[in-house]
Amino acid sequence: MSDTLHRVRVGILGASGYAGAELIRLLARHPNADIALLTGNRRVGESIGDVFPHLAGLDLPRLSALSADALAGAGLDVVFCALPHGVTQDVAVEMMAAPGGDGGAVKIIDLSPDFRLADVDAYASAYGRAHGAPDLQREAVYGLTELARDEIRGARLIANPGCYPTVALLPLVPLVAAGQIDSKDIIIDAKSGVSGAGRALKERMLFAEVGEGINAYGIASHRHSPEIDQALSIAAGVSVTANFTPHLIPMNRGILATIYVRLAGGAAADDLRASLSQRYEGEAFVGVVAEGVSPATRHVRGSNRCLIGVFADRVKGRAIILAVLDNLVKGASGQAIQNMNLACQLPEGLGLDQIALFP
Amino acid sequence: MSDTLHRVRVGILGASGYAGAELIRLLARHPNADIALLTGNRRVGESIGDVFPHLAGLDLPRLSALSADALAGAGLDVVFCALPHGVTQDVAVEMMAAPGGDGGAVKIIDLSPDFRLADVDAYASAYGRAHGAPDLQREAVYGLTELARDEIRGARLIANPGCYPTVALLPLVPLVAAGQIDSKDIIIDAKSGVSGAGRALKERMLFAEVGEGINAYGIASHRHSPEIDQALSIAAGVSVTANFTPHLIPMNRGILATIYVRLAGGAAADDLRASLSQRYEGEAFVGVVAEGVSPATRHVRGSNRCLIGVFADRVKGRAIILAVLDNLVKGASGQAIQNMNLACQLPEGLGLDQIALFP
Amino acid sequence: MSDTLHRVRVGILGASGYAGAELIRLLARHPNADIALLTGNRRVGESIGDVFPHLAGLDLPRLSALSADALAGAGLDVVFCALPHGVTQDVAVEMMAAPGGDGGAVKIIDLSPDFRLADVDAYASAYGRAHGAPDLQREAVYGLTELARDEIRGARLIANPGCYPTVALLPLVPLVAAGQIDSKDIIIDAKSGVSGAGRALKERMLFAEVGEGINAYGIASHRHSPEIDQALSIAAGVSVTANFTPHLIPMNRGILATIYVRLAGGAAADDLRASLSQRYEGEAFVGVVAEGVSPATRHVRGSNRCLIGVFADRVKGRAIILAVLDNLVKGASGQAIQNMNLACQLPEGLGLDQIALFP
Amino acid sequence: MSDTLHRVRVGILGASGYAGAELIRLLARHPNADIALLTGNRRVGESIGDVFPHLAGLDLPRLSALSADALAGAGLDVVFCALPHGVTQDVAVEMMAAPGGDGGAVKIIDLSPDFRLADVDAYASAYGRAHGAPDLQREAVYGLTELARDEIRGARLIANPGCYPTVALLPLVPLVAAGQIDSKDIIIDAKSGVSGAGRALKERMLFAEVGEGINAYGIASHRHSPEIDQALSIAAGVSVTANFTPHLIPMNRGILATIYVRLAGGAAADDLRASLSQRYEGEAFVGVVAEGVSPATRHVRGSNRCLIGVFADRVKGRAIILAVLDNLVKGASGQAIQNMNLACQLPEGLGLDQIALFP
Repeated sequence: MSDTLHRVRVGILGASGYAGAELIRLLARHPNADIALLTGNRRVGESIGDVFPHLAGLDLPRLSALSADALAGAGLDVVFCALPHGVTQDVAVEMMAAPGGDGGAVKIIDLSPDFRLADVDAYASAYGRAHGAPDLQREAVYGLTELARDEIRGARLIANPGCYPTVALLPLVPLVAAGQIDSKDIIIDAKSGVSGAGRALKERMLFAEVGEGINAYGIASHRHSPEIDQALSIAAGVSVTANFTPHLIPMNRGILATIYVRLAGGAAADDLRASLSQRYEGEAFVGVVAEGVSPATRHVRGSNRCLIGVFADRVKGRAIILAVLDNLVKGASGQAIQNMNLACQLPEGLGLDQIALFP
Repeated sequence: MSDTLHRVRVGILGASGYAGAELIRLLARHPNADIALLTGNRRVGESIGDVFPHLAGLDLPRLSALSADALAGAGLDVVFCALPHGVTQDVAVEMMAAPGGDGGAVKIIDLSPDFRLADVDAYASAYGRAHGAPDLQREAVYGLTELARDEIRGARLIANPGCYPTVALLPLVPLVAAGQIDSKDIIIDAKSGVSGAGRALKERMLFAEVGEGINAYGIASHRHSPEIDQALSIAAGVSVTANFTPHLIPMNRGILATIYVRLAGGAAADDLRASLSQRYEGEAFVGVVAEGVSPATRHVRGSNRCLIGVFADRVKGRAIILAVLDNLVKGASGQAIQNMNLACQLPEGLGLDQIALFP
Repeated sequence: MSDTLHRVRVGILGASGYAGAELIRLLARHPNADIALLTGNRRVGESIGDVFPHLAGLDLPRLSALSADALAGAGLDVVFCALPHGVTQDVAVEMMAAPGGDGGAVKIIDLSPDFRLADVDAYASAYGRAHGAPDLQREAVYGLTELARDEIRGARLIANPGCYPTVALLPLVPLVAAGQIDSKDIIIDAKSGVSGAGRALKERMLFAEVGEGINAYGIASHRHSPEIDQALSIAAGVSVTANFTPHLIPMNRGILATIYVRLAGGAAADDLRASLSQRYEGEAFVGVVAEGVSPATRHVRGSNRCLIGVFADRVKGRAIILAVLDNLVKGASGQAIQNMNLACQLPEGLGLDQIALFP
Repeated sequence: MSDTLHRVRVGILGASGYAGAELIRLLARHPNADIALLTGNRRVGESIGDVFPHLAGLDLPRLSALSADALAGAGLDVVFCALPHGVTQDVAVEMMAAPGGDGGAVKIIDLSPDFRLADVDAYASAYGRAHGAPDLQREAVYGLTELARDEIRGARLIANPGCYPTVALLPLVPLVAAGQIDSKDIIIDAKSGVSGAGRALKERMLFAEVGEGINAYGIASHRHSPEIDQALSIAAGVSVTANFTPHLIPMNRGILATIYVRLAGGAAADDLRASLSQRYEGEAFVGVVAEGVSPATRHVRGSNRCLIGVFADRVKGRAIILAVLDNLVKGASGQAIQNMNLACQLPEGLGLDQIALFP
């Protein structure tokens, strides 16, 4: 079937990090994508198998330096940016403004937070620097796929959501929009594996510092908070500030969000579950588990799936929502490819049917 | 100093489980305790080194069957019950009612939930069986050491708190009692290592089922909930129902409770911290960490310490409390020995000065 | 391309274990296989999603009881047996002897050790029971794919190799056969993740017993030893007894074999590497890494690949061979599907192109 | 009892690493030691609780810069050097040569490899630099405690053995010396937790790079090899080159050495076990486990114990020796304190009676 579809020529900027590696793992088996450019400034000239031995043996270009020439010369349809925050803004300006109007053709899917906050002041406040491309920010589409398909289809610049916002917003946005939960009383207790922190060297990410322990971090100050608030505020129609507290778990992959909500509009926990089931009926990548089932990260490891469960709380008038995903797939690279498929008029699930790897 | 103190002759019922092993680890180095009896019905006749090789080489009695004769013959001052729930009730009745009035002399410290719920109906409802010793239940003292020293000193029967209740109540009780937080809006998101589930065989506790994953369990139905509610209700002076949601973490030891509270009585997060700092000033085993510090389980592993941190939430009027302990030490066997020391008029910290093992 | 190939109707006996689950993970995405029967005696009537939530959502039959009727009714081309040892022997006799000559059509791929040892006395000695199907044993083909393609192509009954033998034999057999190493001085120190032990309940497989530790087991007595010796003896042309010492590692998947050999026939370590590189040139699933590279299990996790490295030892005249694979894929279910493809005249790699999942 | 003994004033150079932290954990509870100086160049001025939160609350000096003045001013009896290799040589020269003859009084226990190789050329070859203190090297005593008590008692400068050499030499030296194994055919396959690599930032030590995987490293080139060879050569009376192959295990602490030997002098595996049992009879920190028992690292975690097991191999004329210890305790800081006790005429086991922490 996919033989009759067009092919997409992609570049991956920042291919030496975990999100970049995961893009390669998925795109190398994507039936309609061709990887034409890999950049990674620390490892220029190396093969991807040198940087990531699990990717050895694939027929891929060597890592280049990130440059306008490299980009222009590769003739790309789609550029995935898995760069440190702040860098994509410059890259995007350059690409979009390229002479000859090529900027109109190439699509950018940015896995960094550079274009996620519509309000450039909120960006400046969260990231401690002025936004470098406010015009492009206005154009950027926030790519939470299941909730923004129409915008994504036509987008030139897609801000791929953060891993934490994805796992929190997939269950929360429909419920807030429906008025079934109180948008002023949302607590998101999130637990993540270590790969979300990337491959950069930090003492607190050493095995001996993470193993056999757990701690919260970024308490009341994590940069994903404004991103979550932004989407919830749009859904609620009023300004929302949600609690968001991430924790580091001694595992490589996976996020679980345990979300504590107050019921509203006469809804019971069962109504929330019914509402989400209806909202995500037929979705390939978002599922609502049966009553009484507690979703676990191990059951989505390596897949593009998000699973959601709903429980009545012991506390009257409250419910508990549990959502899991693989932070590198649905929380990053998988969703990015879902967005690529949409933006390139390919079947949305192409290349994303990996079953979770358990145990 | 401890040479001049009297010696305590102890028995450990249920020595083949993790809590029993931890009692042995600590009591074998306690300067004033002598282990005179170990029972373990599945492993009768074996040495403790057969059952727990890390305890090999200690000069200890072999495992006996649990029987009235064994108990009577051992001449014990203190009996630690690390038995499955339901069993201590029978043992305690027998011991306390022993002819010759010995029942008056021996002290029972029960690590099971058998005597934790003052209301025997609440017990029946949580554990699905009628309480087997309602008279003794009336006498039992709930042994959250730092908050109940006077009762513990004179007690014959001490119900040692559960691991989750200990980590939740140490920060919450003083704040609820002071009216600084709203007792109707308490959410306890707890994360535990696997040893809390004991050594019994369950598919969901196999390494391959736990490793590289996280999930919640016992959602809105965990048996530690009534125990938490009971203590909070006493502190509040009104009936309290708190959320309590436990999660299983791929690590052996440690619990982190992330507690979400609504401020009350005009208090700010800093006031909560100040209040707890004052309440636990001078305590050897409960510490309040500095502003901005996130306590981690790895820093209390193997020690009897509980660390508490307080953060202002992004959500106005709310705060986040973090508390950590080692579920087998302050959450079980360490606190039991603390209680033994108190009940036997020994210095409370005797045998409990282990520094945490990191990494 | 695969559209023009015939389809294969498969059954999986023992679908509630890890090897069974891994067969489902791979076969559910195999372009030419249809899963028509799943059996699992402990979980009859349940959906596979109840038994393995990571497989929920696939359109698969419910678990049946294992019976002659179930087998006959399913019209299978291939039966995978992932049953406890001893059971396949009976099942195979029944299937192969089925009236109407159907036994001639169906192919059995046995993941248990039931048909791996050609010498039924060696079987009886290793497994403590007489072989139940000596006639079929004579017919069985030992399915180490890369080294036995011709026999596998025509086989009705394939004994799929054990995980440890696969990782040891892929490098050793060609070198022993070439006389480049001394077959009387082979030491195989193997390290395995826990999933190799299956999902059965054993105290020593609990997370708390495995985590944060390592130990050897089955020292000088593991049942994979005769299987390794058998293949080495055939390759050497003389009876070989090799050391084999397995260790349990706190991880879910993966085996590393560190093999210590004495060089023979004038070969140096480089010759061993060259020899293996030549032997496996063009192979999709067996690779020889470059000089100086140490293969790691994490780089083959979830894939059907085996990677081999060779190092000169500091000790003159000796070399060190390192080989890794995923025990559930190339060490079990992946190789079984490779064998199915061969036996069914499909392209050997069909359905097996998963890239390793890292991190 | 220890009240009547003299007190020892100690300094720890390099207190911000894991070995330094472990020295503090143990010395802070040592009945006769006082920690008078802590240095850590990267963290000067910080409290130890800032650097290692698990050590918070202890009454200890802040971290100083390493300087001659700091050393002179602290009035130390013993200096533990837990510094990067190459640094102790300079420090030792300065201290030993201090005017006023103080150099005669202070004892240096060096946990780095700086003084372990008696042959300064071997040092130069292994570490790529000329030895900086050849005179002191001549004086240094190799501190494998159980095998060198007499020299250690009178030593001014003790080279504390590496973690791998300790676990390998404790079983091997007596057997080689007795001629019960062939010194020309020794293979040491060692598996270590990550803390042995220290706290320095390396990509390969990130949790995501270590978790769920295993690999060998330093194959045929690890710097502990000459150290092992040196001790074996002395024991054998001839030059010995042993295989030594270390592996990295996803756990924090512990080393297991699986040692493959050829029997000599008519000895059987049982004779090896008997020989070692006799050699270590009465030793507090080295034990030989019973026939058939496989020692595990989890059973010595946090303790100063080394456990040794011996098995007959399936291969005629060969045996398998297994030895475990905690790399930070008996493999580093615990043994260093054992040496301090000896050198300071204190009871050898003082402060080292910690029972292993399991699970």
